[in-house]
Amino acid sequence: METNQTHLKLKTPLRCIVKLGGAAITSKNDFEKINEGNLVTVSSQLRDAMMSSGSSSEPVLEMDWSKRPGISDTLNRVDDFKEQQVLDYNSFVVIHGAGSFGHFQASKSGVHKGGLNQPLVKAGFVATRISVTSLNLEIVRALAREGIPSVAMNPFSCGWSTRERNIASADVSTVVEALDSGFVPVLHGDAVLDESLGCTILSGDVIISHLAAQLKPEFVVFLTDVFGVYDRPPAEPNAVLLREIAVREDGSWSVVKPTLEDMDKQVEISVASHDTTGGMATKISEAAMIAKLGIDVYIVKAATEHSLTALSGKLRDKIPKDWLGTVIRYVS
Amino acid sequence: METNQTHLKLKTPLRCIVKLGGAAITSKNDFEKINEGNLVTVSSQLRDAMMSSGSSSEPVLEMDWSKRPGISDTLNRVDDFKEQQVLDYNSFVVIHGAGSFGHFQASKSGVHKGGLNQPLVKAGFVATRISVTSLNLEIVRALAREGIPSVAMNPFSCGWSTRERNIASADVSTVVEALDSGFVPVLHGDAVLDESLGCTILSGDVIISHLAAQLKPEFVVFLTDVFGVYDRPPAEPNAVLLREIAVREDGSWSVVKPTLEDMDKQVEISVASHDTTGGMATKISEAAMIAKLGIDVYIVKAATEHSLTALSGKLRDKIPKDWLGTVIRYVS
Repeated sequence: METNQTHLKLKTPLRCIVKLGGAAITSKNDFEKINEGNLVTVSSQLRDAMMSSGSSSEPVLEMDWSKRPGISDTLNRVDDFKEQQVLDYNSFVVIHGAGSFGHFQASKSGVHKGGLNQPLVKAGFVATRISVTSLNLEIVRALAREGIPSVAMNPFSCGWSTRERNIASADVSTVVEALDSGFVPVLHGDAVLDESLGCTILSGDVIISHLAAQLKPEFVVFLTDVFGVYDRPPAEPNAVLLREIAVREDGSWSVVKPTLEDMDKQVEISVASHDTTGGMATKISEAAMIAKLGIDVYIVKAATEHSLTALSGKLRDKIPKDWLGTVIRYVS
Repeated sequence: METNQTHLKLKTPLRCIVKLGGAAITSKNDFEKINEGNLVTVSSQLRDAMMSSGSSSEPVLEMDWSKRPGISDTLNRVDDFKEQQVLDYNSFVVIHGAGSFGHFQASKSGVHKGGLNQPLVKAGFVATRISVTSLNLEIVRALAREGIPSVAMNPFSCGWSTRERNIASADVSTVVEALDSGFVPVLHGDAVLDESLGCTILSGDVIISHLAAQLKPEFVVFLTDVFGVYDRPPAEPNAVLLREIAVREDGSWSVVKPTLEDMDKQVEISVASHDTTGGMATKISEAAMIAKLGIDVYIVKAATEHSLTALSGKLRDKIPKDWLGTVIRYVS
């Protein structure tokens, strides 16, 4: 039941798809714990990036009117809106990873391998969804507190499904309608039904590739917990940050900055060395597929001045010398 | 984009659609407060009703493996499943109201009246969804703790929308696929996009009517906070519980039990008197539309022996003399 292309015409072009990496917004080694500090900063930077010039001086009016510990003046939050101007937003789609949510439940039960006839897998599917949707709710709330009109769109509820782990059905028209109505859809990696396996995990990165191809944003930003893509595991002493990667028509890519002369020794990217350290080669390959569509991809450390620069879209014109991050871009 | 009928063939017939009334599972006058006692009992009764005979002696294995206050042994919950038999469930769909969740946000901002170009309405849409999805998450978790394979299906995420507040697009195929995979979909009243108004509130009761017509369950149960439908506001001293209402081919209905002789005075149901007291006439009319399809409707007080009887399906054969509740049923 794929949607035909006529549904996918957005009223206004999509500015940005942003991935909130699981490692950036959760405490990776602390079960189901959000990195509150980072999440607040990321939400605030997103607000700044979404506001058109001129609107950013408006006060932040919270759109989360639910109970929360220590705060009781929900009513005031409502009344503030009666005076508010209609604001102009750059349209964004937010996708987040799972971090320390969902992974435990999914890996313990083997949800990604399928087999819903096994009680353990079925229970793990339920448990995984509970965990990732609870993270999703907290992210939607954090964005809404910054005045961002965020709405949860859970891929399983959206009816998205896979076949042998590849997307089989992912109707983007609902996302388009939410964008056209002025909302910021918030999606996430989720447990979904798989036509051949019964079920599996649909990752946030696969969702981004799918949405980027269909919605053609001006640029894509991956917010992560390191400064970008390195030539080896970033914790290693001689790791070099790759500043710019060029992607060619055939999908192949190469590092253009730093140049070999800039460095003490040659950059060595090998699939083998990277796949053991968080799948950086996979990450570059996926980013390269997006870049091949003519969409700039920025991989940058969350909650830094560099992430704010990336989200603002300024990098498309010129990459400042002191900007830290990785740009992956198509060269014809 | 309505689904054609071929998608709606369930592998096994749907046993029951059950509505958890907002008044039954939340503290209606206490902002965003769940009635925990009722929710636990309701979840446990649902489990009993879903288990086929023979399976009900199996231990309850929790499917909520997320953090919760005071409980740390998540790992044990996982290991329990390795021994578990494949259980046979009667298939259920759960729909819940909002109670003290969402109403405040929706009514303060006028989401039901539409007008997304107004900042207050747009913010209210976001705030309403945050509130109802947080209730939904808690209900899914309560069911999962009773070993029910519950999965959230949020109508907005499902892409359901309205036109002048009537359902315009509500593709049930996703619900069918979840049921066919052995899950219990949990839906709820939600803020949705409306083709003419911009947005509105899609109520749980409208969702039930839509699903009942498409999925043809054996019976429908409304769990509420009173014993059933009365001839006047139940708090009034002479209020009479209507035990049985007969629905005719043309959709008209009449009280068949108690008979006029049973009562001191005539039963007086008038739309005017009831609509001021919680819309009982509306409730009967909607239930009558379901009953007209040949589907029994039971309206019963949640978390009582009577609700357990209703959920078990026993009422279709015989209504015990000591059963308290309202049966709404088609008579040819």
